[in-house]
Amino acid sequence: MKWNARHPLVFVLAVVLGLAFGTQVLAQSDPLPSWNEGAAKEAIVKFVEVTTTQGSPQFVPPAERIATFDQDGTLWVEHPMYSQVVYCFDRVPAVVKARPELANVEPFKTVMSGNREAIAKLSMDDLFKILAATLTGMSVEDFKAEAKKWLDTARDPRWKRPYTELTYLPMQEVLKYLRANGYRTYIVTGGGQDFVRMYADEVYGIPPEQVVGTASGAKYGYTKNGKPFLTKEPKLLLNDNNAGKPEGIYLMIGRRPYAAFGNSTGDRQMLEYTKAGAGERLAMLVLHDDAQREYAYGPALGLPATRVGTFTQALYDQAKREGWVVISMKSDWKRIFTFEP
Amino acid sequence: MKWNARHPLVFVLAVVLGLAFGTQVLAQSDPLPSWNEGAAKEAIVKFVEVTTTQGSPQFVPPAERIATFDQDGTLWVEHPMYSQVVYCFDRVPAVVKARPELANVEPFKTVMSGNREAIAKLSMDDLFKILAATLTGMSVEDFKAEAKKWLDTARDPRWKRPYTELTYLPMQEVLKYLRANGYRTYIVTGGGQDFVRMYADEVYGIPPEQVVGTASGAKYGYTKNGKPFLTKEPKLLLNDNNAGKPEGIYLMIGRRPYAAFGNSTGDRQMLEYTKAGAGERLAMLVLHDDAQREYAYGPALGLPATRVGTFTQALYDQAKREGWVVISMKSDWKRIFTFEP
Repeated sequence: MKWNARHPLVFVLAVVLGLAFGTQVLAQSDPLPSWNEGAAKEAIVKFVEVTTTQGSPQFVPPAERIATFDQDGTLWVEHPMYSQVVYCFDRVPAVVKARPELANVEPFKTVMSGNREAIAKLSMDDLFKILAATLTGMSVEDFKAEAKKWLDTARDPRWKRPYTELTYLPMQEVLKYLRANGYRTYIVTGGGQDFVRMYADEVYGIPPEQVVGTASGAKYGYTKNGKPFLTKEPKLLLNDNNAGKPEGIYLMIGRRPYAAFGNSTGDRQMLEYTKAGAGERLAMLVLHDDAQREYAYGPALGLPATRVGTFTQALYDQAKREGWVVISMKSDWKRIFTFEP
Repeated sequence: MKWNARHPLVFVLAVVLGLAFGTQVLAQSDPLPSWNEGAAKEAIVKFVEVTTTQGSPQFVPPAERIATFDQDGTLWVEHPMYSQVVYCFDRVPAVVKARPELANVEPFKTVMSGNREAIAKLSMDDLFKILAATLTGMSVEDFKAEAKKWLDTARDPRWKRPYTELTYLPMQEVLKYLRANGYRTYIVTGGGQDFVRMYADEVYGIPPEQVVGTASGAKYGYTKNGKPFLTKEPKLLLNDNNAGKPEGIYLMIGRRPYAAFGNSTGDRQMLEYTKAGAGERLAMLVLHDDAQREYAYGPALGLPATRVGTFTQALYDQAKREGWVVISMKSDWKRIFTFEP
């Protein structure tokens, strides 16, 4: 058999070698171009190198390469309010229209009044009532149709863009870089599991089965014609915040992550659990310290306090003490959004 | 650049082409050699062909290729008793030793008596008490160590072999055949999720994150030294039987399977849910009708009734009515176990 550059198998070879060795080619160019040089970028690159280089003492077999990411505030914008909560409030008029008896019942009455000051004062109990009424009691298919419609049309008030465009380019690069090196990337979010599954594949390249989130039960039943379907129930199966994150990881993945990324006190236990594993583990926290390009909140380092994505000084101190890496949006990220000029 | 057969890249090409086109080579030889020719084998091969051939009207994109398998009675032997229940009974002496106050408390007293007749009469409530005492209340690591020890040493009373060798060769071939064609294979079992995760990778090539099972909560906490760990709690999160199977699939995978395999009434809803999806879907039930080579039980078709893996006549009739394929172990399987002569 003779070979030359025009031999059809040479083309096949080029394609196949491209697939097989694409990883290495990628590793030679900068995999994280939206990151400024510094400790955060270095930590990521070093972690990938030592855990994926054959012969490295910290080598991790491909099957065990799991990286988990909080979503709100870690992969996309969570201020002034979590997107899913905005969705729930936007759904209230339709719910009240379908169930008019709610119009005079709190907290729906207050939401319908449009009185922002009163709405801002709603309690956590009220919020749960709104989440339950807008996220449960319908078939899984009806929920998906409603959520899709909203995702396609709703716009963030500051950037006037779909919420799904408000993802952080540097974190998208981390997701791709890890995947190019054999890591499977999971979202582990306090947000609703099936809400996030709606767009995670398109927005982050993360398929539904790799989204772990706060989950309510889905109840199996039949239509009048005997067709099976699932109904979303107001029964909480997994509150995927705080201790619920490692608990959810154990339930849904059954492996301890090698890398975990978060941005608030709700991610603390996930990072602790990750770092408690043997070998090289990476734990990172995004600090929102860039009011100009995004938002600034803490209260760590004297940043303004917030109830949405709280990053306490205690969390910051624990990070420093335990070798977690804090990412400063302001100084570590060259560019935050793809739509930036 | 000159090419010839001794060029080192030709070797690379051969290896890489082997990886890339191995699927097709496999499809050309018989992928299911332990199956007799017949409707069951044909249904599997036809399903794979029409759902994975580019241009086929029933083509399924690789990301959506999900196949779910019940375990007990579908992938391995479940008679005379589910392996995990045997594990739990075997664990009772150690539990009673650690908690001597249980020695005079039912049902532990009866189990410790060794009186087989009395043990056989234990109620479901008693059984749950035994499961709770032997499967919960310890750290995840301690549980894994105990389960591993048992799996390594316990022997099935009939074949005198480790339980993990009692898997059905024809079903192992189906798992491999589906995976070679881009399907991801999941176990969806009424058995304990973390028990099955212990061996599913080694025995079936199914990694922990693709095992969905009956799951109790794992509670996050800290040792005295501040090291985080998870404790198995007696709190049922998912009863992965009957309606719990599609509910668990929605929770853990978030996609509807294209193929589902079971063997008892506990699998009915999973098969209904699978078949209710659009396009080509495969639903199969293993019928244990081979007392000589394995076991025979129904009560479908007049086979002996059983409480372990019940296959009712109603289930059989539904299968016939709805186009599910019933696999006869006796006539469809040429060989059942790898250790058969």
